[in-house]
Amino acid sequence: MRPIIPVRALRVSARPVLSTSSRAFCKREFSSAINRAPSRLLRFAALAAGAGIAGGLTLAMQDQLSAEAAPRLPSSPDLSNVKLELIEDSSAPMRERMAAFVKLLQKEIVDALQKEEQDGSNAVYTDKNGKSVDAAEGRKPASFIVEAWKREQGGEGISCVIQDGVVFEKGGVNVSVVHGQLPPSAIRQMSADHGELIERVGYVTEGPNAQVDSLPFFATGISLVIHPKNPFAPTSHLNYRYFELGHPEKLRDGSPNPRYNPNEPAAWWFGGGSDLTPMYLYEEDAEHFHKTVKAAADSQDKAFYPAWKKWCDSYFWITHRDENRGVGGVFFDDVSLPSWSKARSYIPLQDGSKHSTSELVSSLQHDKDSLFSTMQALGHSYVPSYVPLVHKRKNEPYNEDNVEWQRLRRGRYAEFNLVYDRGTKFGLMTPGARMESILMSLPLHARWEYMEPSSGTGREHSVAAAGRREEAVRTTPADELKAREIIQSVLEKPREWA
Amino acid sequence: MRPIIPVRALRVSARPVLSTSSRAFCKREFSSAINRAPSRLLRFAALAAGAGIAGGLTLAMQDQLSAEAAPRLPSSPDLSNVKLELIEDSSAPMRERMAAFVKLLQKEIVDALQKEEQDGSNAVYTDKNGKSVDAAEGRKPASFIVEAWKREQGGEGISCVIQDGVVFEKGGVNVSVVHGQLPPSAIRQMSADHGELIERVGYVTEGPNAQVDSLPFFATGISLVIHPKNPFAPTSHLNYRYFELGHPEKLRDGSPNPRYNPNEPAAWWFGGGSDLTPMYLYEEDAEHFHKTVKAAADSQDKAFYPAWKKWCDSYFWITHRDENRGVGGVFFDDVSLPSWSKARSYIPLQDGSKHSTSELVSSLQHDKDSLFSTMQALGHSYVPSYVPLVHKRKNEPYNEDNVEWQRLRRGRYAEFNLVYDRGTKFGLMTPGARMESILMSLPLHARWEYMEPSSGTGREHSVAAAGRREEAVRTTPADELKAREIIQSVLEKPREWA
Repeated sequence: MRPIIPVRALRVSARPVLSTSSRAFCKREFSSAINRAPSRLLRFAALAAGAGIAGGLTLAMQDQLSAEAAPRLPSSPDLSNVKLELIEDSSAPMRERMAAFVKLLQKEIVDALQKEEQDGSNAVYTDKNGKSVDAAEGRKPASFIVEAWKREQGGEGISCVIQDGVVFEKGGVNVSVVHGQLPPSAIRQMSADHGELIERVGYVTEGPNAQVDSLPFFATGISLVIHPKNPFAPTSHLNYRYFELGHPEKLRDGSPNPRYNPNEPAAWWFGGGSDLTPMYLYEEDAEHFHKTVKAAADSQDKAFYPAWKKWCDSYFWITHRDENRGVGGVFFDDVSLPSWSKARSYIPLQDGSKHSTSELVSSLQHDKDSLFSTMQALGHSYVPSYVPLVHKRKNEPYNEDNVEWQRLRRGRYAEFNLVYDRGTKFGLMTPGARMESILMSLPLHARWEYMEPSSGTGREHSVAAAGRREEAVRTTPADELKAREIIQSVLEKPREWA
Repeated sequence: MRPIIPVRALRVSARPVLSTSSRAFCKREFSSAINRAPSRLLRFAALAAGAGIAGGLTLAMQDQLSAEAAPRLPSSPDLSNVKLELIEDSSAPMRERMAAFVKLLQKEIVDALQKEEQDGSNAVYTDKNGKSVDAAEGRKPASFIVEAWKREQGGEGISCVIQDGVVFEKGGVNVSVVHGQLPPSAIRQMSADHGELIERVGYVTEGPNAQVDSLPFFATGISLVIHPKNPFAPTSHLNYRYFELGHPEKLRDGSPNPRYNPNEPAAWWFGGGSDLTPMYLYEEDAEHFHKTVKAAADSQDKAFYPAWKKWCDSYFWITHRDENRGVGGVFFDDVSLPSWSKARSYIPLQDGSKHSTSELVSSLQHDKDSLFSTMQALGHSYVPSYVPLVHKRKNEPYNEDNVEWQRLRRGRYAEFNLVYDRGTKFGLMTPGARMESILMSLPLHARWEYMEPSSGTGREHSVAAAGRREEAVRTTPADELKAREIIQSVLEKPREWA
């Protein structure tokens, strides 16, 4: 093997706020510096210099003598520059109000999860030989890495990620506030996902009669996926977002656009939801999650939860497996006002997937403010809906069988996100997007077994499947197999929980 | 947790050949029977009965007293009913010749891999605490499970899968021979992938002027993915297939189709290739693989390898990661004759992806026979191109760092297959397809790390990335980091190997 040190160009499109200089960071120089450095201290200094750490953080070099002293980023988002008062100010633009709200919610959630991680876990892990050990392997709780970034094309965000903790195996809570121009290809994708909301905008964007080259957009949202370490603690996902499409200032031929109005979007909508993915079913946990979310939705409009619970079961369906990703929650998209839509219902819900037949009809009078209120009520329900479940399950003793099943279920989670999830697909197709922020939802560990006997072709009607089942019965305790079967049956046939 | 035993309907679309009766196998009865059975013997008997094992295999019940005695399927495909003489018979239809060839090749490959597994591994595994153990953990070599199946809609196949072996972590070698009617949605997908080959067929299949409702098709092929256990042994993939589109007997309005001819397809083509995915780069391994495949291709036409190597690098590109799935090999599709295509080149190659600019131009006179010859030469080159690499690397000692990197690379493999691979996507969209045969390509274990410092955002220009790199330098040996960097650089910039 020849020692080849590659020159690798920096492919950063989301520029970190804390970084300052030397954007042409060259891997060759970085690697050579490391290899030349005689001591760990110097090796770190080379790394720090190579990475351009200078202005944002002051490096106390003497601290580097301790192996613990890696450069530390804050473990909680900083709200000192966020105008939280905008959230309540109904005269302010919704863009700014929603952006302030998602940052507030991010901090609320990250702090609650960090506290749960800090609190630790005393779970005992038993391996195949029956040997029991501390599941945390003597490690200390992990901290969220909080990183602010700017998008060159316009916008900013904060990524908060925790990895390899004692309570959380992997999790990310991201917010972003971005704006720019949507090219026809992205509009096409958006039309496929959002139906008539795009039609309503009323511009021809492709073909010989195209009136405009692109449409201005604005988007802000919060997105999270949390994968706990303990197989009995459920995974959860949340996303709340606000989207605007604007009128272009000029038409394609250069003439002024008569419809141009910077203060009035051509279309706007809210979308989002939160949902739960347990590896093992505790009915009381699924009920707690759903009831908490439902109470928040009901506080705004009793018509919301039934429609959005149904939509959630439909959206997270893994068609090729004929099963759901989890036990659901709420999901909705394109939530706007009747004046923005041709639909009959008061708050129109268009679902592109053929699974959903839900249509939300409410007798209440909503306005943009009351819809934003709904986002807030639902967003704030996340911590009380989910964190108590982690708290309750994180100390459960578990064994190798439980971990295998957990990883297998996480393989299905990865399948859903890579094959179906709108946000992930949109991100993967967006040049210049920060891939690992998009793929942060993927688990640390996943497993795919051929002919798995509780959830795969091992259940089928064949000699080989019978062999796999016989093997499972021989090597796996009966209560474990039964527990797998119970959650599997719920995934295949969604239930009501609240 | 309430003990809920679900009734689960059988969702078998690929009916196993060996099974016979009781297709309405009911999970509730099966589970209850297990739970009532007082002994392992009876529990197995319940399983066997539930699975409807009767005619195909004779169950010697006394054998079940030993826990080892699961029903055994053959570990090598049976060729006794395959007319191998057809392969050489140029007067026989290509459908039958190719079907016989892929079955022959499947046996050749499965037997070679099974021999390698049987031969075992004496690799030593060292964990994070420096403790070294037998990597096989005292387990015995695994056997391929060979299972023949029939497709209700028309066709048959043989799946050979090995899992959790001492040499192979997971691998499958599948052949299928299927036929039926392609609905307009599948024709649309095929048009996207195969460009003018479909156009050439010349039927309007959609819209108010549609002439036909569907098109008859025939497809036969072999498809394999092998994931060895040792992180220094590379993963490999192979696929060779033959496809025909036919003329429908009747047009949509019920009138006879003047173009109907059961002996002359409307279009036919070969496609396939084989490629290598090492986790660590041994240049001599990549060279051996490429040289062996190139020699086989050169034996037919020296124009093949250069064009198909390039196409391979383009096809297996993971766009969102800006890196290749592996170090390549050969890949081609739509290989037909000029009379079947409008393209200028002798053997037209149309690549739908925007990456490829390759166009194969040969001065040799090919016919359908010589193209089939090429499939055979390439197919037979797989065992000598790949198995010696496994043999050479399977005993290498390895440690926890190596396994982590292997699983991380396998996460990327899963990303490619779920997001981009034509065959997988086509399969996931096909109702009634056997999902776990399609997803057999997924690894047993995969890993996704946020900010991984050798291949992910941990290389970026930020304080957090610098922290991740510092952590990697502190916790991972320098030679391991360098080895990761070497393979990463090759994945990002494909090289010539032969």
